[in-house]
Amino acid sequence: MSPTITEVAVHDIRFPTSERLDGSDAMHPDPDYSAAYVVLRTDAPDGLEGHGFCFTIGRGNEVAAAAIRALRPHVEGRAVDSVVGDLGGFHRRLTRDSQLRWLGPDKGVTHMAAGALTNAVWDLAAKRAGLPVWEFLAAMPPEQIVDLVDFRYVTDALDREQALDILRAAMPGRAARVAELKASGYPAYTTSPGWLGYSDEKLVKLAQQAVADGFGQIKLKIGADLADDVRRMRLAREAVGPGIRIAVDANQRWDVSDALGWMSALAPYDPYWIEEPTSPDDILAHAAVRAGQPVKVATGEHVANRVVFKQLLQAGAVDFVQIDAARVAGVNENIAILLLAARFGVPVCPHAGGVGLCELVQHLAMFDYAAVSGSLDGRVIEYVDHLHEHFTDPVVIEGGRYRAPTAPGFSARMRPESLAAHRYPDGPVWRARSATAKEAN
Amino acid sequence: MSPTITEVAVHDIRFPTSERLDGSDAMHPDPDYSAAYVVLRTDAPDGLEGHGFCFTIGRGNEVAAAAIRALRPHVEGRAVDSVVGDLGGFHRRLTRDSQLRWLGPDKGVTHMAAGALTNAVWDLAAKRAGLPVWEFLAAMPPEQIVDLVDFRYVTDALDREQALDILRAAMPGRAARVAELKASGYPAYTTSPGWLGYSDEKLVKLAQQAVADGFGQIKLKIGADLADDVRRMRLAREAVGPGIRIAVDANQRWDVSDALGWMSALAPYDPYWIEEPTSPDDILAHAAVRAGQPVKVATGEHVANRVVFKQLLQAGAVDFVQIDAARVAGVNENIAILLLAARFGVPVCPHAGGVGLCELVQHLAMFDYAAVSGSLDGRVIEYVDHLHEHFTDPVVIEGGRYRAPTAPGFSARMRPESLAAHRYPDGPVWRARSATAKEAN
Repeated sequence: MSPTITEVAVHDIRFPTSERLDGSDAMHPDPDYSAAYVVLRTDAPDGLEGHGFCFTIGRGNEVAAAAIRALRPHVEGRAVDSVVGDLGGFHRRLTRDSQLRWLGPDKGVTHMAAGALTNAVWDLAAKRAGLPVWEFLAAMPPEQIVDLVDFRYVTDALDREQALDILRAAMPGRAARVAELKASGYPAYTTSPGWLGYSDEKLVKLAQQAVADGFGQIKLKIGADLADDVRRMRLAREAVGPGIRIAVDANQRWDVSDALGWMSALAPYDPYWIEEPTSPDDILAHAAVRAGQPVKVATGEHVANRVVFKQLLQAGAVDFVQIDAARVAGVNENIAILLLAARFGVPVCPHAGGVGLCELVQHLAMFDYAAVSGSLDGRVIEYVDHLHEHFTDPVVIEGGRYRAPTAPGFSARMRPESLAAHRYPDGPVWRARSATAKEAN
Repeated sequence: MSPTITEVAVHDIRFPTSERLDGSDAMHPDPDYSAAYVVLRTDAPDGLEGHGFCFTIGRGNEVAAAAIRALRPHVEGRAVDSVVGDLGGFHRRLTRDSQLRWLGPDKGVTHMAAGALTNAVWDLAAKRAGLPVWEFLAAMPPEQIVDLVDFRYVTDALDREQALDILRAAMPGRAARVAELKASGYPAYTTSPGWLGYSDEKLVKLAQQAVADGFGQIKLKIGADLADDVRRMRLAREAVGPGIRIAVDANQRWDVSDALGWMSALAPYDPYWIEEPTSPDDILAHAAVRAGQPVKVATGEHVANRVVFKQLLQAGAVDFVQIDAARVAGVNENIAILLLAARFGVPVCPHAGGVGLCELVQHLAMFDYAAVSGSLDGRVIEYVDHLHEHFTDPVVIEGGRYRAPTAPGFSARMRPESLAAHRYPDGPVWRARSATAKEAN
């Protein structure tokens, strides 16, 4: 008899990152990186757990936790085999719940919650297979991979047969690319120098450090003040020299006309891409920004689902697709997005950072190289050097590249002592802050 | 000194509508119409309250309630004057919270929660002015109305000056149109005959009743089974004759190719519009459906925000804009959408039904006629005859028209005894169902 998923434990975990302006950008000046964190437990003798999370930036993390709890009946009490043995069906049951879909559909907190649970199930499934998620996926035949995907609303751009064609075309080199990833890892870029709240001195120092560490690309947050951004871009360019790519990121701050003006002013310093120039919902505005100025356009970390990614590709609105491991409904929907990007020949450069996003998304990028796009051309995974110490299998960066993870699962497990310390609002880290705030009053 | 908003009470209210298949459609076969219901109380001697709600269809209503609570610090403890005296600023503070926006932005449960609170504040503001919301709005000068709007992300289609032009152009006839609305109301259509779970007999009987009641348009839910839909459409057409409009509604069931095939099969029975043919996020697919078959296209009840409405208009994807009073961030964002529709010359035909949606949205349609579009051409408000008995100022339909509401406020107040009876999970209606379910086991 199949073991059962006996428990779906949900935790509100927050890190007080706003204290040091780590992660500060033009729209999110004071993020407290947080996770609505879920642990699946089973009654199997192997004792394996599935870990996953919604990433948020503080307030509202409790709403994400409530959304995960609302989906619990699709998971708790279910036979493990019915879930990990039918990962496509499980994913569709979560995202198509006939009452919960009213709160989306396919967007916002309920969709992120479906992603947290889907990713937790993938963590469990890969552990049971004894493989890291990227290798677990890269070992599947094309027919099994397309069964994972929900093709609803994307068949005007990609249907099952076309997806199979993409995956079959990538079969010949798969084993060699898996071996290459194990030997050499996957290229990364770093955003650590560029947070908007950092001083010029810190920016220059960290930019130089990034080059010394082997990164070929850095990223600067911009969009709050044009004169500041011109100065910071000039300083960064002087610090890294002409051979290093500098991407810039407006974090949705602009309308179309703002974007066109701002990017003309920055053009002399050769920005590599402009990321999130405007609303993540605005396909037509991204197309207008791409057409109206010379810098390449990237977006995706806030794109709600495969339907919006599909349109960004159909409209020729982006040069780079930036998947996020914890925004859409987990591994399955990201496979749909990887296939769409491959169909349109657009490179995927994943968003990461936050807490745990690097750990997760490296698996998806490596699967993309091994089994979908088969290419590293123009591909880099974002890297930010915060909060990895809280994970039991943290990412490893060497010479500006992600080393391929080897531990079974999704690298999603936070250390038990980190969970205990950062529980909100009653963990010791938050109780101490609350006491300090009271003393100050 | 200004009074203070002393309390933001949040209630989880659910109606067991799935028992009779009221509201059943191709994607939502078993809705329990629900409200995450909010009451603002102040310490003003007038004792006035502000009422608002998120509409949901059951599961997840508690997530919407949690989202309202997450926004509470923007409301509770604030001076009433700082809120009702700056309705534009208040609205932007809610939707731009620097941490909560990560959960959207501008979509999903957190955005709906911003709508519930915004609408509750409008209810309070209009009561303090002694006017129904539609008349309160229709008495404002254009300069005050544009201050209510968040133009971020829409200036490529509509900026403040263009919005002012629209409102100023409608000034001359305003008073006459207000008088006309008070005398004759606003045209309606009814969806009551067309729920997917109803028998053919019930469909025919209710369709005939609708015509007898003075409606010039009815609507049928379709999209689950083509043969069934052809039969139901034929029966409805035979029941109402050629002079009554029959709209059809697929509730997001299709991809583009499905929509084109289905609508060809129904075309002989002259459908008036096809509503929600596909994903509400899919601007390009709506444009393809509009271009690929002869029936007019309507959508909007699940469109997340003004940015997506803007693109539907820019892309020529819709013939009718269907605003919903409780999906976007309340009155303010709906004013942005009304102005966008007016700019593109597309009529607004509001979505209603559920619980309380008719009560709210009539105010927005009447404001549109009085002060924005200045036209009734092609305009109708949806009407569904469920659950109005739970409101203290229910809509009044006469001869197929909404009578203009006269009570101060937003017609949003549910009867206290209805709130008490339908509280979930511990109100008597739900306790009784739970007991019955236990007995059956």
